[in-house]
Amino acid sequence: MKKANQSISDKEVYQKTLQLIHERGVTIEEIAELVYFLQSKYFPDITSDQCEFHVSKVLEKREVQNAVLTGIALDQLAEKNLLESPLQEMLINDEGLYGVDEILSLSIVNVYGSIGLTNYGYIDKIKPGILKKLNNHENGEVHTFLDDIVGAIAAAASSRIAHNNFSREN
Amino acid sequence: MKKANQSISDKEVYQKTLQLIHERGVTIEEIAELVYFLQSKYFPDITSDQCEFHVSKVLEKREVQNAVLTGIALDQLAEKNLLESPLQEMLINDEGLYGVDEILSLSIVNVYGSIGLTNYGYIDKIKPGILKKLNNHENGEVHTFLDDIVGAIAAAASSRIAHNNFSREN
Amino acid sequence: MKKANQSISDKEVYQKTLQLIHERGVTIEEIAELVYFLQSKYFPDITSDQCEFHVSKVLEKREVQNAVLTGIALDQLAEKNLLESPLQEMLINDEGLYGVDEILSLSIVNVYGSIGLTNYGYIDKIKPGILKKLNNHENGEVHTFLDDIVGAIAAAASSRIAHNNFSREN
Amino acid sequence: MKKANQSISDKEVYQKTLQLIHERGVTIEEIAELVYFLQSKYFPDITSDQCEFHVSKVLEKREVQNAVLTGIALDQLAEKNLLESPLQEMLINDEGLYGVDEILSLSIVNVYGSIGLTNYGYIDKIKPGILKKLNNHENGEVHTFLDDIVGAIAAAASSRIAHNNFSREN
Repeated sequence: MKKANQSISDKEVYQKTLQLIHERGVTIEEIAELVYFLQSKYFPDITSDQCEFHVSKVLEKREVQNAVLTGIALDQLAEKNLLESPLQEMLINDEGLYGVDEILSLSIVNVYGSIGLTNYGYIDKIKPGILKKLNNHENGEVHTFLDDIVGAIAAAASSRIAHNNFSREN
Repeated sequence: MKKANQSISDKEVYQKTLQLIHERGVTIEEIAELVYFLQSKYFPDITSDQCEFHVSKVLEKREVQNAVLTGIALDQLAEKNLLESPLQEMLINDEGLYGVDEILSLSIVNVYGSIGLTNYGYIDKIKPGILKKLNNHENGEVHTFLDDIVGAIAAAASSRIAHNNFSREN
Repeated sequence: MKKANQSISDKEVYQKTLQLIHERGVTIEEIAELVYFLQSKYFPDITSDQCEFHVSKVLEKREVQNAVLTGIALDQLAEKNLLESPLQEMLINDEGLYGVDEILSLSIVNVYGSIGLTNYGYIDKIKPGILKKLNNHENGEVHTFLDDIVGAIAAAASSRIAHNNFSREN
Repeated sequence: MKKANQSISDKEVYQKTLQLIHERGVTIEEIAELVYFLQSKYFPDITSDQCEFHVSKVLEKREVQNAVLTGIALDQLAEKNLLESPLQEMLINDEGLYGVDEILSLSIVNVYGSIGLTNYGYIDKIKPGILKKLNNHENGEVHTFLDDIVGAIAAAASSRIAHNNFSREN
């Protein structure tokens, strides 16, 4: 049962989220580039700075932070060979029938509603920029979760832009 | 493909949402009572006014408005016998294997994250207050969607309260 | 509350599903072509007949049938101008912040698990074959839901193929 | 990117799933009791053996196995204090704003469609039988994930029973 009080501060959770993304080799700028890739055709005047701003706002959401902390933890544990078989092999190989990474990513995308689903699937398939790098599996690195999480953050930031731009005051 | 511009104002969508809920016989107070039912054991000091406030904030979300407008439209069309068979019978009978009402409701609950899932399922089963009334199917009324939607709005408002109360500044 | 008994036969629901898809101008072959487009690079020996078979199996699922019957009903009602404003305009314009079509489609994709999410997003963006035709909005036709539903059926069929091919006995 | 081939056999994944559930102190009979609790009012003739059968069928699904393996791994790592702060504290305390357990559980419930959502939320709140025991947090045990997962398996088995019983051959 969920506890109604807690000892963990919001700031601590937020800062750990940023720290882990950075430690795993991904910059906010690189996530913002994915957003620009997705949105510049719809909003030709959008700037890199604006894309970065929306990524930052996505990362302030607790639901997103939970997914990042959990997904990166699993990637790291797999790298250190600390998971039991067959979960260990599933994560190392980004195994075809393992979909928990997509499930966690969906919880990120949904933070700004279902309109982000298409963008998420699209860049996860095309793998532009940082997503290609994460997917290379160099040096024994495991990014089974981070790969999908980064795409999901970019998709959520794109939805945030859509909400801000499509909305019309009366 | 989603259009990047639109002619519908936010205000228009919001007001239609409130109007339809009212027309279908549900008040904001009744939804707030469900929130109080769910949350008063965790937050003994919570007031009815606060519950109403959180319900109102949930109803400002476009994702919630979309689900309300779509679900009530389907209820109304079923009442007027304007749907084709077998969808017509499925909605009139709230048929056991028809789950689109739960799917729409999930999109409401998820607006404040997955922590609301349990509350949604619980009141949908217990059917306190207005949910019992909606479920009576009196006078040929069809509330197959509204029934679940009202519970989902109350669950989302409860999640909003949790987010506001569990969060700790530094 | 869901009814434990029902008067609607499975066969009736299944046949109406096939009939509606056909009436709205989509053939099983065209959906199978999307599956071939998605899967032939992974399974070079796959045939069109096999793709069709997997599409047929997806359409036997009640969850899929519910989404098809509901989504096409909304498309048809919008075409006949039978929905109230602003839902009517949202559907006619496939409005940018309306995401109920994605929500229904997700319930189709999920029938074979979250591994289909990426394929769904990808073809919804690329719009190959029949998806391009549905998206043209010719002759006052409204395919706001069908467009996404067809992509979701193809993605689910692709997941079914993955489950069948990745699974290893012993 | 998902790999099209894999070295992990279905049997291995299935047996590890059963083994982990057993090791964490939950029997199939106890999950079947939850199913009986949920379904006996709708199907008075249902037997414990039938409930067990449906639980077993749920556990054969790969999506369910993935969620079980991942969730129990996280519970175990938290018990061994092997997670970094603040994820470690979130899991030990089943923290109020951490919803990844619900997200994983939803992927289990959805295996038989959205009609199981209500049952999942209901028993997660009521905590009958084994769920009460798991929630006691005795002896430093962490069951933040398993608690929800067991409820989700019972809810999915209930949906399976509904599908089998509501379906009508013409």
